[in-house]
Amino acid sequence: MNTYLLVPAALALMGQAALPKLLTPTDVVNAAPASAWKTIPADELLVMDLANGGRVVIQLAPMFAPVHVANVQKMARANYWPGATVYRVQDNYVAQWGLGETEKPLPPGVLAKPPAEYTRALAGLNITPLGSPDPYAPAAGFVDGWPVAYSPSEGWANLTHCYGYVGVSRGMDPETGSAADLYANIGHAPRHLDRNIASVGRVVEGIDKLSSLPRGTEGLGFYKDKSQHVPIASIRLASQVSAADRPAFEYMDTASPTFAQYLKIRANRRDDFYIRPAGGVDLCNVQVPVRRKPTGERG
Amino acid sequence: MNTYLLVPAALALMGQAALPKLLTPTDVVNAAPASAWKTIPADELLVMDLANGGRVVIQLAPMFAPVHVANVQKMARANYWPGATVYRVQDNYVAQWGLGETEKPLPPGVLAKPPAEYTRALAGLNITPLGSPDPYAPAAGFVDGWPVAYSPSEGWANLTHCYGYVGVSRGMDPETGSAADLYANIGHAPRHLDRNIASVGRVVEGIDKLSSLPRGTEGLGFYKDKSQHVPIASIRLASQVSAADRPAFEYMDTASPTFAQYLKIRANRRDDFYIRPAGGVDLCNVQVPVRRKPTGERG
Repeated sequence: MNTYLLVPAALALMGQAALPKLLTPTDVVNAAPASAWKTIPADELLVMDLANGGRVVIQLAPMFAPVHVANVQKMARANYWPGATVYRVQDNYVAQWGLGETEKPLPPGVLAKPPAEYTRALAGLNITPLGSPDPYAPAAGFVDGWPVAYSPSEGWANLTHCYGYVGVSRGMDPETGSAADLYANIGHAPRHLDRNIASVGRVVEGIDKLSSLPRGTEGLGFYKDKSQHVPIASIRLASQVSAADRPAFEYMDTASPTFAQYLKIRANRRDDFYIRPAGGVDLCNVQVPVRRKPTGERG
Repeated sequence: MNTYLLVPAALALMGQAALPKLLTPTDVVNAAPASAWKTIPADELLVMDLANGGRVVIQLAPMFAPVHVANVQKMARANYWPGATVYRVQDNYVAQWGLGETEKPLPPGVLAKPPAEYTRALAGLNITPLGSPDPYAPAAGFVDGWPVAYSPSEGWANLTHCYGYVGVSRGMDPETGSAADLYANIGHAPRHLDRNIASVGRVVEGIDKLSSLPRGTEGLGFYKDKSQHVPIASIRLASQVSAADRPAFEYMDTASPTFAQYLKIRANRRDDFYIRPAGGVDLCNVQVPVRRKPTGERG
């Protein structure tokens, strides 16, 4: 018998008792009941297929940047991105893609200058606290599957810049970017970008297709020659993809007891490899579990 | 005139006054006086040349793991690593290299089972505090160019697992690893490994040669086939490399006024792009400046 794997019944029996020594975060995810998972709507999944065959799937976050996300959805539906490439890959920072400097007019209904959706109101959010200090905000936690930093006294919350999270490229303030060009974080979380840029989602599959690209040798990681740009075959919403090829994902409900258990173990690794549990954890090291929906549940 | 670049005289005049709005961390590094830099001894630089021409240079940290570092130095001098490869690349985690599972005897003088150099005594360390909370330890800061977490009450300090930092692969506790196999962090800092594994240094040049490698598709990012392993041409101390080809680096003295200035600005970005300074910073986002020694100073 493999003592690393605890069955759901054992998990349920544990209640508030001390954690068993050998439980890993993966054990908790594997044992999660169906009720702990929430489906991502097909209109909130952006499917980016690279010309080399790699697929990158991004979950959009309308809860945090509704105007920027609506722009992304409108550009996808209008097939705005033929010719787009990954044109910047800066080590320990970002991979960035889109049409770059272009005169191409935005599709109808796309706002060229969206409001600065860098934070949103804290009111109404049911946050599960991280329980560890955060260097970048008064508090941190999770809401509806997303990591957030927030200030109870000032009443704001922001989607945080963690590994694999996606933001909107912009020039200097006050421009906020139209979302025609996006980037994903491929290094240590650049949390200093929080509240200075619009975050619109996260890569839920295929971040390695971006993080393993050659680094650009020009300033800020831009590729020197256009010949180095990585061509993108298509950027579509999952709802635009043929049913046979359409990806479907679900994320763990961060208000669920399973997530509470997962969070506790992330902060206190006690399985065989670990000798000294930290007793704390960085927000971006608590990756919210996201997975492909089990076959047959795609609806 | 470029208002982004402040000359050293201007920096000196600033004293403890409010920071000028446009100063960036790079400005501070560029303006640092020669006295703010310390040379890395050639015996504390490990030069790993990949067969594809890429060079990775690692600064060793004898202050934190003297026995493991001595093992590395002895293996380099004994030319222990012919046939070594990068055989594991796990996205958002580590790139790992060495001979892997091998029966090759260790060179004379190399300890197969070093002590658990996961922490060291805090006593005697002159630490520059980070000034922001740390989720993984009671306190964090910098000592002699290295980022550290520490506990004043318990009297320990550890070299932290930041991006590009290098640790010693090991099996299950109580083994600590001989240092025949090493790894570098290529994603969000896996700080939960702090105090559970021996950290022996950091990549000071060429981390992109590891972070941009294809990810392994087996469990934990191991490459499936040996044919995918990335061959390493040589692993030597800089002191073993011919003078013409020998790299020479220096790091910023973390006890210097220049570093204090750099740290303050890292936590409060106010240059043109930034709208809301964070007022805090994560330890691993304060990369200690390391650079090639200016030509003519190689000695």
